[in-house]
Amino acid sequence: MNWAERAAQHDAQDALAGFRSQFAGHDDPAVPAYLDGNSLGRPPLAAKQRWADFVETEWGGRLIRGWDEGWFAKPLALGDRIAAATLGAAAGQTIVGDSTTVSLYKLVHAALAARPDRSEIVVDRGNFPTDRYIVEGIARDTGRTIRWIDVELGAGVTPDDVAAVIGDQTAVVLLSHVAFRSGFVADVPAITAAVHEAGGLVVWDLCHSVGVLPIELDAWGVDFAAGCSYKYLNGGPGAPAFLYVRAEHHELAQQPIQGWMGVRDSFEMGPVYEPAEGIRRFVSGTPPVNAMIGIEAMLDLVEEAGIGAIREKSVALTEFAIELYDALLAPSGVELTSPRDAAVRGGHVTIDHERFPALIGELWSEGVIPDFRPPAGIRLGLSPLSTSFAEVEHAISRIAAGLAR
Amino acid sequence: MNWAERAAQHDAQDALAGFRSQFAGHDDPAVPAYLDGNSLGRPPLAAKQRWADFVETEWGGRLIRGWDEGWFAKPLALGDRIAAATLGAAAGQTIVGDSTTVSLYKLVHAALAARPDRSEIVVDRGNFPTDRYIVEGIARDTGRTIRWIDVELGAGVTPDDVAAVIGDQTAVVLLSHVAFRSGFVADVPAITAAVHEAGGLVVWDLCHSVGVLPIELDAWGVDFAAGCSYKYLNGGPGAPAFLYVRAEHHELAQQPIQGWMGVRDSFEMGPVYEPAEGIRRFVSGTPPVNAMIGIEAMLDLVEEAGIGAIREKSVALTEFAIELYDALLAPSGVELTSPRDAAVRGGHVTIDHERFPALIGELWSEGVIPDFRPPAGIRLGLSPLSTSFAEVEHAISRIAAGLAR
Repeated sequence: MNWAERAAQHDAQDALAGFRSQFAGHDDPAVPAYLDGNSLGRPPLAAKQRWADFVETEWGGRLIRGWDEGWFAKPLALGDRIAAATLGAAAGQTIVGDSTTVSLYKLVHAALAARPDRSEIVVDRGNFPTDRYIVEGIARDTGRTIRWIDVELGAGVTPDDVAAVIGDQTAVVLLSHVAFRSGFVADVPAITAAVHEAGGLVVWDLCHSVGVLPIELDAWGVDFAAGCSYKYLNGGPGAPAFLYVRAEHHELAQQPIQGWMGVRDSFEMGPVYEPAEGIRRFVSGTPPVNAMIGIEAMLDLVEEAGIGAIREKSVALTEFAIELYDALLAPSGVELTSPRDAAVRGGHVTIDHERFPALIGELWSEGVIPDFRPPAGIRLGLSPLSTSFAEVEHAISRIAAGLAR
Repeated sequence: MNWAERAAQHDAQDALAGFRSQFAGHDDPAVPAYLDGNSLGRPPLAAKQRWADFVETEWGGRLIRGWDEGWFAKPLALGDRIAAATLGAAAGQTIVGDSTTVSLYKLVHAALAARPDRSEIVVDRGNFPTDRYIVEGIARDTGRTIRWIDVELGAGVTPDDVAAVIGDQTAVVLLSHVAFRSGFVADVPAITAAVHEAGGLVVWDLCHSVGVLPIELDAWGVDFAAGCSYKYLNGGPGAPAFLYVRAEHHELAQQPIQGWMGVRDSFEMGPVYEPAEGIRRFVSGTPPVNAMIGIEAMLDLVEEAGIGAIREKSVALTEFAIELYDALLAPSGVELTSPRDAAVRGGHVTIDHERFPALIGELWSEGVIPDFRPPAGIRLGLSPLSTSFAEVEHAISRIAAGLAR
């Protein structure tokens, strides 16, 4: 059986294969392999009709009344849905609204407000740029010191990496659950426990794990988390992020961007800021209702499939990619940057070769679309509900053919 | 000629009357008078098809390639378009992205960064809640003092009000161009000049003026401004705000939320935050591309009509509303809260009566939809491209009939 036949067999046996036709462009002959669903997920087909209906019926038909009839509640309602389907979090701790960057900014500030006497913020040099840049600005503006964990860009961190830098001055530690380049999965419960032991708080960036890996924020004792909705939650380009604040921190962890939608009664328009009870106080401005529609369409599919089955297919997809790598790419000197152990590997696989910077344009021009990560990485993002085994086989065969030329 | 006939005559002579059919629901028999376009503008009809096309062709067809093909440039490109059509601002000073609340937060911080040795932030007690709450949080977090201008909620401020509180400790003054309740238009050039004379900077909130009043940010010497896009720019519920930073402040006015989309080269993912040149440094996270579509559809119409003609119809609509008020409501003791002088009146008219809190539900139930503003105000929002004179007449007649019962 050749590789294409093996891919076909995997697809035939895939219990989630039926979901693929629920995404716009899945049969577009111009894009035979889209492997960047971890950067921008495909549109759920239902999003198209929902957006049209929203304009006509909800926005156009209900007009301003829509706020009382559900929009005002949306940041919490959609947050609860994401929490139940993907975060392992009870209701009332998650909201949707700002960008990931703004959300992380709020959470790091909130953690500092809950640890006012501690001077250090911990972050790793390998973390996604926005996480590092946010912390640089906050450290400057609040007079805190950054303790850097010195790892390679996008590599991820271990409990030992963290243990080496935390101490009695640690206020907050900001890390990514799944590393954006290697796909390495951090040990959230162990790291969180160690930071708590030292008296600090954690903020977990879930951008590369939400929707593809089971997450248990409540059980893992996580203090704060945020993540984006345009990767494995397929919300569309720039769809709003979610943020999670553990219930016990709602009172003490003051957020800096005090807006009219986070107060006890927005329409009383009182003379001073009186934060709402619970997670609503983390809402700032008017929620982006018309940007939430894609996320809702995707959650229907995630809820139907279940995050356990999604992870199962994710592991099968990345295992198959590594099998193909071993057979077709390793002989050409391509390096596997992602972990071989599926237990610590997220939903994407990164491979490196000095000729990839030249090859990527060629791949894109033939509709084989992985991501490129400097200096020489191709990142294969495998989004379980929309990616087929045939796409993985096609892409890796095309990469091998490119290197053979 | 009775009032309905006069309204029909106005509509027949209205050069912009043809635009009304470009909005979804304009002929909905269940909503004979929608007078809340200053809170949530009606959907431009074109938005429906554009959203569907966006999902299918742009997001679904171009996928991740969309970022290189225009999305990455969107915050600045759409900002420039808003600036040219409505703000009187040259290109390269305006972006679109976060909520109004987050945008104001950035701007007040940026102004403080440019005036580090001054201790006071000036804001009026009448300003919209989010403006006041933001300043409360920033004052607390940066150790600044708030100098309050003591005016009634939503009343607006005069140059004298401002002159009474500014001085050599004034870092920044945050005011609204058009007051959200009374509709009073502040004298932006005079107040801005006075604040500059004292060595301070201004942030103007344009939420209730953008798209309905001509604005000349460059000519008026304004330092910073922000405004929302879901009122007279009809972007849809929670559509992203714009912010303006005068070119001369780009260098010095450091913004606090340092994200990966505001740096020199986002995809280099460098080790430290290096802000982009110009206005791009005010971008934080991934821009909400799929939330910008409604704004674009409306800008087509605003550009076609021209802001001068829009203001002309706006004045005619509010004059007609006041004529109707004089004839039908003043005799019942209803108070006119908005200015009689059109030169200092924005696009809405507020009237107060002790029976309005009880009457508003009745009006809404018959599809007459103005806004209610506590304690006892009805705010008639007249959005020039989508509101007819007949709607104004119908609404005020129904209010009069309600009071007569």
